[in-house]
Amino acid sequence: MLKVGIIIGSASDLEKVAPAAKALREFGVPYEAKVLSAHRTPDEAAAFAASARENGFGALICAAGKAAHLAGAVAARTTLPVIGIPVKASALEGLDALLSTVQMPAGIPVATVAIDGAANAALLAVQILAVTDASLAEKLEAKRAADRADVLAAKVEL
Amino acid sequence: MLKVGIIIGSASDLEKVAPAAKALREFGVPYEAKVLSAHRTPDEAAAFAASARENGFGALICAAGKAAHLAGAVAARTTLPVIGIPVKASALEGLDALLSTVQMPAGIPVATVAIDGAANAALLAVQILAVTDASLAEKLEAKRAADRADVLAAKVEL
Amino acid sequence: MLKVGIIIGSASDLEKVAPAAKALREFGVPYEAKVLSAHRTPDEAAAFAASARENGFGALICAAGKAAHLAGAVAARTTLPVIGIPVKASALEGLDALLSTVQMPAGIPVATVAIDGAANAALLAVQILAVTDASLAEKLEAKRAADRADVLAAKVEL
Amino acid sequence: MLKVGIIIGSASDLEKVAPAAKALREFGVPYEAKVLSAHRTPDEAAAFAASARENGFGALICAAGKAAHLAGAVAARTTLPVIGIPVKASALEGLDALLSTVQMPAGIPVATVAIDGAANAALLAVQILAVTDASLAEKLEAKRAADRADVLAAKVEL
Amino acid sequence: MLKVGIIIGSASDLEKVAPAAKALREFGVPYEAKVLSAHRTPDEAAAFAASARENGFGALICAAGKAAHLAGAVAARTTLPVIGIPVKASALEGLDALLSTVQMPAGIPVATVAIDGAANAALLAVQILAVTDASLAEKLEAKRAADRADVLAAKVEL
Amino acid sequence: MLKVGIIIGSASDLEKVAPAAKALREFGVPYEAKVLSAHRTPDEAAAFAASARENGFGALICAAGKAAHLAGAVAARTTLPVIGIPVKASALEGLDALLSTVQMPAGIPVATVAIDGAANAALLAVQILAVTDASLAEKLEAKRAADRADVLAAKVEL
Amino acid sequence: MLKVGIIIGSASDLEKVAPAAKALREFGVPYEAKVLSAHRTPDEAAAFAASARENGFGALICAAGKAAHLAGAVAARTTLPVIGIPVKASALEGLDALLSTVQMPAGIPVATVAIDGAANAALLAVQILAVTDASLAEKLEAKRAADRADVLAAKVEL
Amino acid sequence: MLKVGIIIGSASDLEKVAPAAKALREFGVPYEAKVLSAHRTPDEAAAFAASARENGFGALICAAGKAAHLAGAVAARTTLPVIGIPVKASALEGLDALLSTVQMPAGIPVATVAIDGAANAALLAVQILAVTDASLAEKLEAKRAADRADVLAAKVEL
Repeated sequence: MLKVGIIIGSASDLEKVAPAAKALREFGVPYEAKVLSAHRTPDEAAAFAASARENGFGALICAAGKAAHLAGAVAARTTLPVIGIPVKASALEGLDALLSTVQMPAGIPVATVAIDGAANAALLAVQILAVTDASLAEKLEAKRAADRADVLAAKVEL
Repeated sequence: MLKVGIIIGSASDLEKVAPAAKALREFGVPYEAKVLSAHRTPDEAAAFAASARENGFGALICAAGKAAHLAGAVAARTTLPVIGIPVKASALEGLDALLSTVQMPAGIPVATVAIDGAANAALLAVQILAVTDASLAEKLEAKRAADRADVLAAKVEL
Repeated sequence: MLKVGIIIGSASDLEKVAPAAKALREFGVPYEAKVLSAHRTPDEAAAFAASARENGFGALICAAGKAAHLAGAVAARTTLPVIGIPVKASALEGLDALLSTVQMPAGIPVATVAIDGAANAALLAVQILAVTDASLAEKLEAKRAADRADVLAAKVEL
Repeated sequence: MLKVGIIIGSASDLEKVAPAAKALREFGVPYEAKVLSAHRTPDEAAAFAASARENGFGALICAAGKAAHLAGAVAARTTLPVIGIPVKASALEGLDALLSTVQMPAGIPVATVAIDGAANAALLAVQILAVTDASLAEKLEAKRAADRADVLAAKVEL
Repeated sequence: MLKVGIIIGSASDLEKVAPAAKALREFGVPYEAKVLSAHRTPDEAAAFAASARENGFGALICAAGKAAHLAGAVAARTTLPVIGIPVKASALEGLDALLSTVQMPAGIPVATVAIDGAANAALLAVQILAVTDASLAEKLEAKRAADRADVLAAKVEL
Repeated sequence: MLKVGIIIGSASDLEKVAPAAKALREFGVPYEAKVLSAHRTPDEAAAFAASARENGFGALICAAGKAAHLAGAVAARTTLPVIGIPVKASALEGLDALLSTVQMPAGIPVATVAIDGAANAALLAVQILAVTDASLAEKLEAKRAADRADVLAAKVEL
Repeated sequence: MLKVGIIIGSASDLEKVAPAAKALREFGVPYEAKVLSAHRTPDEAAAFAASARENGFGALICAAGKAAHLAGAVAARTTLPVIGIPVKASALEGLDALLSTVQMPAGIPVATVAIDGAANAALLAVQILAVTDASLAEKLEAKRAADRADVLAAKVEL
Repeated sequence: MLKVGIIIGSASDLEKVAPAAKALREFGVPYEAKVLSAHRTPDEAAAFAASARENGFGALICAAGKAAHLAGAVAARTTLPVIGIPVKASALEGLDALLSTVQMPAGIPVATVAIDGAANAALLAVQILAVTDASLAEKLEAKRAADRADVLAAKVEL
């Protein structure tokens, strides 16, 4: 099965992407996690992205805060789908990271999810892989059914 | 080949998504366009989304402005990748549509592109289909090369 | 007497709407609370909304955060007045929920109150029921008089 | 039948609320329009609001821009439902009017609709009157059906 | 000497305006503090404002949060200078209160200071009284000199 | 009578402050207008401010756009009341000028009016002068009455 | 003399940086302009930046809009000072470009100027070169004196 | 070697600029730190800036919050490069300081770094001094290599 890459610009963002790894494990989707910075290791980030398809990746998840260039820099070097997680850092409530991730120029899309939306980034990666993988699509439906059951089972005492 | 769905909430958004259709034609990717409103035709939108996978769609592009619920409403009914285009409408510069599209709760991701980013939405759809379609991946690389050549050929007289 | 519905998308929003329930009890207005998600239980949310009028509801209060679609999704299925409470979640100070709730397209209004404004949502529901209920209108006037007395009784030592 | 009041702070906002009047006429709901400023005619605005219920009004629509106090000032003097339309004026894209209208303190709700959302303000007023008026509720359903038909009839050529 | 009024909409804002009272005491300027709400005690607020000049006030300071109408409502009833303090409340970082206070329509100015800027509101009131009071103007100059000395005396060890 | 100073940072802002001059003429309040830049003529701006009180000024109005430092720079050199007009320039809708003008640090207040609020800046200056000038206060009341009459005379045809 | 590089991501931004070139010519500072995209020609942009110092550049000016990564991508490959011009594009008033340019992570600064601030970007580049070039510093002082004279010569008729 | 000036408007900002001093020490670049307020000590700030070049400074770092005028006020008095650090203070998440620092008018640039970006401000100062100092440029390259090594050495366990 194709792998999902999880890339963070700094080890300090590790806990921000932990929910993505957890979700991928639940779906049995293999993944590799890397610390690669668009600014401090641009060559390594570029090399990783450029060879991602041939190395068996099907989608890349990139998480970064502030002027979040990581997803865009990776997307510039691969034609695989790149999913961007804007990370809420110390100021501006994550709005800076959101705009830096989503407002990409024509030609280089980044599939952006919510601020600190690591779990959804993983789900989106699974959805992408499931486009041509019926068994994975079934797992997604099962997850939806479970989520639905959780909501319906919730007790409300007001 | 799997199709791409292009859904708008109102015929008035047609010109906003025209670049998406144009890009899909350039890649030879089949698409179907629909006007379906999350609010005015919720049943039809739900039915379309729920049956999209079995009807041969591989990804759905949804464009909406203001409190842009369309992509989220569609995403709630399918596990196909849903791509959201926030449309800049009369006020707030499209910020309302961006936040309404991207800030989805856990469980239901929307792959959000830039405000009025229809061309990139289509490219993202193509990238998703190309994950398991080598010929489409080649076309994406060729497009990148052409874009690159365009930039390098640009004359700058300052 | 007509009932008021209080709908939240997740049990975690329960404390956010508790002031609404408290206010309704003070006015002796019957209410029912439900957990129904626009995205995780769209069919149940739609069914609840579609039958709300015939089931004796006079107004529906919906609370949701982030890309808050709940009020809009409910409003799309009923012509009862729908009151939206934008909930402040982890990022963006509730601005995302506010814009997602209030910026509804033509045809489907949502009566939006302040971020985390559950008490006012309940008051608005009571005001709506009081349009044709003189006794309830009197209670509203009495509440206003009490609020006024509270302000006038406040001691200021500066 | 109960009337709807349409109040603007300045004659220059007349075209902003014209869609509200048009919608009310379509539903056969009587209305009265007034120019009353929270700041330049506070006494008249207060008197109008304070006597609105006894004068046969069932809901009041207030439209104002910038530091939009009109809806709040009216709501402070009546327990009728007050609907606020934030008007986009020369700067800040209407965000100032939106926040000034919707962020009301506890005790005095304003049912806020979208920036420049006059048509929806009228629909919301009709929905409020229709809570106890079955014939009006039927007209609302008919309007929904017509809106739905319009969407479904839309031709999409892309 | 003319007095300064300090008005808050709720006793909970008392600590927000304490620095204003402290500053006025330092300048020996008499003041009166009141709890008066634009929304919950509109008549009392109006009456206070309308008679403020004849009651010996020279300037009025109003502090309020969220949809902060207090300063504007007071300014609508007096031609004394009204100084508005936008108070940072639970959400939106005080931006709502700032815009609601400062974006007043033509005819009714509010002299707005920074979010939670109570000390500066008092200084501004003193500056206004000092326009025709040479002794007060001297005190302002002395305060400036003291502030200047404080800055110049600061030790920096880096 | 004390004069009002109107200061702009660039001749291009002249039309922005024209309504201020017009209002002052209507009240018979003498004024002087100057082009003085906080950044390009800091010494001249400082000298003007420092001697404004002894030169017969009672209040200073400063208009500037973008990182609008003019009002603050003037306020740092005088203890006269300084009124700031944030000017909407080419980007950010005037939000930059508003925040640069109003968010002054403790010790140096700027009485900020609405974005492009020149007429209100002049009214505020007149209100300040009228604190100890009964005849001017009467003119302000007369202006209020005229404004009120204008609103009440407005015809509304909807 | 060291050269200044002017880099734009697309030929369509040419008019945005024209004032930079004009300013550099006025100071007699040599410059080279290039179209290099962080996303469409990442290798060429990287190569240009990496060799800029040895190729005789003393500072690099980068202009880009939306998710403006150009300045950051260039700054990641050189230790020369990189000056970023956020360009106002079709939506969000340039706020996206500003945040994407200025909010750089630790280690890779970008010297950011105002939105569409090309002339100031050039002045900043000249200031940087003038740190060790007394003749250039004199020209900067002369420019300041000329700007000052322009302001002082402005006629104000109000 | 030329010195770097670090200027803060208040001793309370000392911890905000400590990372700048630390970075300069690491590079062996001499610096002087001062508390000088644009508003409370405008003459001293102006005098310091005006004589900075002749006193051996090569770049000036200014940190301020709220309506952050310090960098602009300093830049108005020197043609040395001035680097502005917007400081996040109690409200608005530092957006006010960012806009007040970066949106400078034509003629007076401020090289703005990220909110609370003191370390990058120092790096930028070093980069400026390194334009004509090969040994300092080497140190910058060494720092980049060390940063790169840190990223590559990071262990990721997910």
